[in-house]
Amino acid sequence: MGRHTVVFQPDGVSVKVAEGTELGRAAAMAGIQLKSTCGGEGTCGLCAVKVLSGRFATREGRILPERRRKGMVLACRTWVQGDMEVEIPSTSRLAAHQVLVEEGARREIAFERELDPVGRYGFHPVGHKILAVLDPPTLTDNASDLSRLLTRFRREDGRAAPAIGLTALRRLPRALREGKWRVTVTLVDAGGTEEMVRVEPGDSRRPPYGLAVDIGTTSCVVHLVDLRSGLAVDRRGSFNRQARYGDDVITRIIHAAERPEGLSELNAAVLETINALVDELLAANALEAEDLIAAAVAGNTTMTHLFLSIPPDHIRLEPYLPAAVSFPVVRAGELGLKLNPDAPVYVFPAVASYVGGDIVSGVLLTDLAHAAPVTLFIDVGTNGEIVLGNRDWLVACACSAGPCFEGGGITCGMRATPGAIERVRVEPGGREVRLQTVGGMPPAGICGSGMIDALAALHEAGVIDRSGNFRDLDTPRLREGEEGPEFVLAAAHETGGERDIVLTAADLKNLIRAKGAIYAGIRSLLAAVELGVQAIERVYIAGGFGNYLDVRDAIRVGMLPDLELERYRFVGNSSVKGARLALVSRPAWAEAERIARRLTYLELSASSSYMEEFVSALFLPHTDLDQFPSVRDAELGVRPCPGR
Amino acid sequence: MGRHTVVFQPDGVSVKVAEGTELGRAAAMAGIQLKSTCGGEGTCGLCAVKVLSGRFATREGRILPERRRKGMVLACRTWVQGDMEVEIPSTSRLAAHQVLVEEGARREIAFERELDPVGRYGFHPVGHKILAVLDPPTLTDNASDLSRLLTRFRREDGRAAPAIGLTALRRLPRALREGKWRVTVTLVDAGGTEEMVRVEPGDSRRPPYGLAVDIGTTSCVVHLVDLRSGLAVDRRGSFNRQARYGDDVITRIIHAAERPEGLSELNAAVLETINALVDELLAANALEAEDLIAAAVAGNTTMTHLFLSIPPDHIRLEPYLPAAVSFPVVRAGELGLKLNPDAPVYVFPAVASYVGGDIVSGVLLTDLAHAAPVTLFIDVGTNGEIVLGNRDWLVACACSAGPCFEGGGITCGMRATPGAIERVRVEPGGREVRLQTVGGMPPAGICGSGMIDALAALHEAGVIDRSGNFRDLDTPRLREGEEGPEFVLAAAHETGGERDIVLTAADLKNLIRAKGAIYAGIRSLLAAVELGVQAIERVYIAGGFGNYLDVRDAIRVGMLPDLELERYRFVGNSSVKGARLALVSRPAWAEAERIARRLTYLELSASSSYMEEFVSALFLPHTDLDQFPSVRDAELGVRPCPGR
Repeated sequence: MGRHTVVFQPDGVSVKVAEGTELGRAAAMAGIQLKSTCGGEGTCGLCAVKVLSGRFATREGRILPERRRKGMVLACRTWVQGDMEVEIPSTSRLAAHQVLVEEGARREIAFERELDPVGRYGFHPVGHKILAVLDPPTLTDNASDLSRLLTRFRREDGRAAPAIGLTALRRLPRALREGKWRVTVTLVDAGGTEEMVRVEPGDSRRPPYGLAVDIGTTSCVVHLVDLRSGLAVDRRGSFNRQARYGDDVITRIIHAAERPEGLSELNAAVLETINALVDELLAANALEAEDLIAAAVAGNTTMTHLFLSIPPDHIRLEPYLPAAVSFPVVRAGELGLKLNPDAPVYVFPAVASYVGGDIVSGVLLTDLAHAAPVTLFIDVGTNGEIVLGNRDWLVACACSAGPCFEGGGITCGMRATPGAIERVRVEPGGREVRLQTVGGMPPAGICGSGMIDALAALHEAGVIDRSGNFRDLDTPRLREGEEGPEFVLAAAHETGGERDIVLTAADLKNLIRAKGAIYAGIRSLLAAVELGVQAIERVYIAGGFGNYLDVRDAIRVGMLPDLELERYRFVGNSSVKGARLALVSRPAWAEAERIARRLTYLELSASSSYMEEFVSALFLPHTDLDQFPSVRDAELGVRPCPGR
Repeated sequence: MGRHTVVFQPDGVSVKVAEGTELGRAAAMAGIQLKSTCGGEGTCGLCAVKVLSGRFATREGRILPERRRKGMVLACRTWVQGDMEVEIPSTSRLAAHQVLVEEGARREIAFERELDPVGRYGFHPVGHKILAVLDPPTLTDNASDLSRLLTRFRREDGRAAPAIGLTALRRLPRALREGKWRVTVTLVDAGGTEEMVRVEPGDSRRPPYGLAVDIGTTSCVVHLVDLRSGLAVDRRGSFNRQARYGDDVITRIIHAAERPEGLSELNAAVLETINALVDELLAANALEAEDLIAAAVAGNTTMTHLFLSIPPDHIRLEPYLPAAVSFPVVRAGELGLKLNPDAPVYVFPAVASYVGGDIVSGVLLTDLAHAAPVTLFIDVGTNGEIVLGNRDWLVACACSAGPCFEGGGITCGMRATPGAIERVRVEPGGREVRLQTVGGMPPAGICGSGMIDALAALHEAGVIDRSGNFRDLDTPRLREGEEGPEFVLAAAHETGGERDIVLTAADLKNLIRAKGAIYAGIRSLLAAVELGVQAIERVYIAGGFGNYLDVRDAIRVGMLPDLELERYRFVGNSSVKGARLALVSRPAWAEAERIARRLTYLELSASSSYMEEFVSALFLPHTDLDQFPSVRDAELGVRPCPGR
């Protein structure tokens, strides 16, 4: 079989691939990530591309009619048969490098200063450098290079001699001689034992660096941490390249479990994602891989398994068992991470299949586990993970909110990237709509916070009833679409967008189920500890979703409990920040293990009361209006909507 | 550039190589190891081959005239230019698989029984298996797979929970379910901490295995050790594939230091050597790589560095510093050894640049370091390493005996493989010679023990004087060769051999220097502790050389001290046996570290008295005949030669 060149437009990048290569894979090889939520099954229609020229084979998949009319094909159902030129529209493309690494800075910075996690746990970074000045060897003082170094250590430090990593040992002889027997040694905590992971000639003034990593199902974020100052000096983010194998953890677990190379493909994809971010950080900061002497990694339980190439198969099968919830400290070289090969990689412990290390990291970052007030921690991603507790007790659960707040399963859903509708106002009667999009671009779809907003606005405007069903209104925006009734938020001809942006009756049902699942989860945790909603003194909202979320709207639709707005705080990406904390504070890292053990996991699928709570929550805001007094009072005209 | 096929005869094996590939490398790729002592510089002439057909480029090198006349070329100076057919004569070939793994069994077995090293240190193997029977999970008992296993452990074992290797963790979920929650766990000592390196479904009756490895400059020997019984159930040996980069440690250090890929080539070569032996062991014993759960490796200091890919550059440069003399416990997977990837690899500590882990292993095996009698331990390979000591003190040195006892630097020298002259008797006057060869084959050269024998016999027959110079005798065996006077041990026309086997005046000088170096080393150790020769109560001779050595001859030429023959014992390959011991006895392994630290290294190149001893030893047997009373008395006719 021959090899063919595929040129991707408008980028102009080309790649040489074997005949029969799937077009989506060819794009990935060229560094272009296509959208997908079906894992390449041809059913989500998101990876549509236009073949400009060349030979190929394609099979029918589920694709929007207007796209089919334009001659587009699904990249996951198309195979290269000769040299090709292919155009990838922006709507089919995962916008790499648009991940929000500076998410909601204005909301967070005050918070971080107020919280001062490093002050709380103490500044004891996992690695530091020491200058060692050795006596030059002679024929009568001819101890080995390593022995000479270790002797000096004992003399200057008073402590037991550290171990040495194999890579550092391989570089020791040259460093000693280049430095004329003065070397800078980097010591790191390799999981309980002190280890030398680097030896540099002479007196190196450059600080040691650590890499904090958050592996999200959707995106990965890394922070470059100066271990001498404790500051994050740079940060990067990008979409998780696993996306081409499916949008949510379940699709990826199935891919890992059922394809022969599935697990290693997913493992390679996340390593590529992180390594590409590391490459950027190194280039931008004029550093070498050797400078990165430790990493702390937090992710949900499935992401953690895939990162370590541990089969996640049973996470999705009753009784939902991860292979492990605590993980050995491994070396970067062993994993294939492009850091110093001897660098220890600390992987955050998980609690259960659906409460992972990212949540433990968030709890570590906040003072949840050590303060007196009862605090609620919510991370809404493709799942909603919720922790409730204080210094005496901690309970956690996960509720299947589904991927809708990240754009999955919603007709015009998308992530909070430019063009996503994030604010919606609807005039009573539903004839007029005002929109705000991320970046002020023509609307391309609607993101999670926009959906919450739309739900609240449509209800308030009387377009939908408390069950989320469309009322019988006379407005051109309400029409019969291909899959039932739908509401037009933005017609293409009004906004200059590519297509009409709609919310269908099915979308609304989805949204109500998702918001209901989260509220039911909160109620179940409260019930488990026999507390009422008002016992919650603080609420931390974590994750990118929180940056755009209007808490008032979330209360109005019954997703979040009806508390004073002052009790709500935003912590942004608490997963990567907790990982950063672990790098600059060894006591904090030790605490992470304790937190994971302390957290009592409530398996909602085993809880009969959860189902009752969930059914009661499938209304706007809730079956029991007394749980949302401010919403009830606003509807009755007693007082304005919360916070207004 | 194209690729060409090279067929090697008489094997008939072929290999496809790129144009311009060096012929010696092509042979190596086809699995044929050629002799070399010059590291491919074209100066030793050992890799001569005959091109039967095909296109090639060649450069003149140092090659025997009769070989040149036959149209032979040096493989290291010949490059492939087209398809070729090449004949490799047996004389140019490293006879793989002829390494003596059962060396001198008759001499050793009684010794091992007598010594009983396992009895001495106790049977505590580094790894063992445990059956774990777990409760199946339920929705209300949904701990992770690893937590479930660890809980069970604590319950049954009472000890702290062990760690788990990453590969074992990756295989845990499947093993638990295949075994229906009954699994066999292999635990191993990963350098101080207990670690699970394997989880098998059900009750596995198969014992765990360890691999004992001796890495010699010339050859590698491995023993397969059943860690349940403690017995070596199989063994294999082959030449070290590093040989193509040079015969001795110095040539290889230069190759590692001066070629850009030198170190990684040498590292790859020794890993290939060991992995090929492992493959054989696994196939012959119907085992999988996973079954090998630990390895103990002993080698000289240079071999140890190359095995771990640590630059050995400074071992050969004054003041002769190794990079390290103790080594971290590393995982097999990290090194590229084809065992269980999580298997810990224990590398024997060295003492100094020229007293390595193989010697520490030998001292561990014998009771040298714990018994009252003063004992001498000698390992004659390409270097002569010598240890003297008892339970109170241990001193060691290395003397540059050179490679002549392994065939290097001697006109017709070769290793003790079939056709090597191992016994020589010379009639007075030197007209008649009787020979014995290894395997009774026509003589192809002379090996180390044959050289000692020949030196003694030529002296006794009056052919050479006490300085090793030829006397002016009337015998056709004494003739003027290309490089001065030489003695014909075997003329080709007499024996059916390929060429005349001679010892030249230069060869004899070489031999006397070599034997003198060893004796001077022994004397220097004795002087350092202020003891005389007769204080030595026992002598252990280690290494392949010992198997063929006639101790009486060695005393007659003044290489070994003039002691009763009963004090001499043979320990064979004490390096691999000590490694085996470390696998079946953790206390023995701990002792190896202590022995390495206890051994006081005497750097002979810094010792003025060594030079004096060396010069005095350049006679047969010695300048001071009083040191060899039995030889003196025999010459005076007072009593027969020692042991006769």
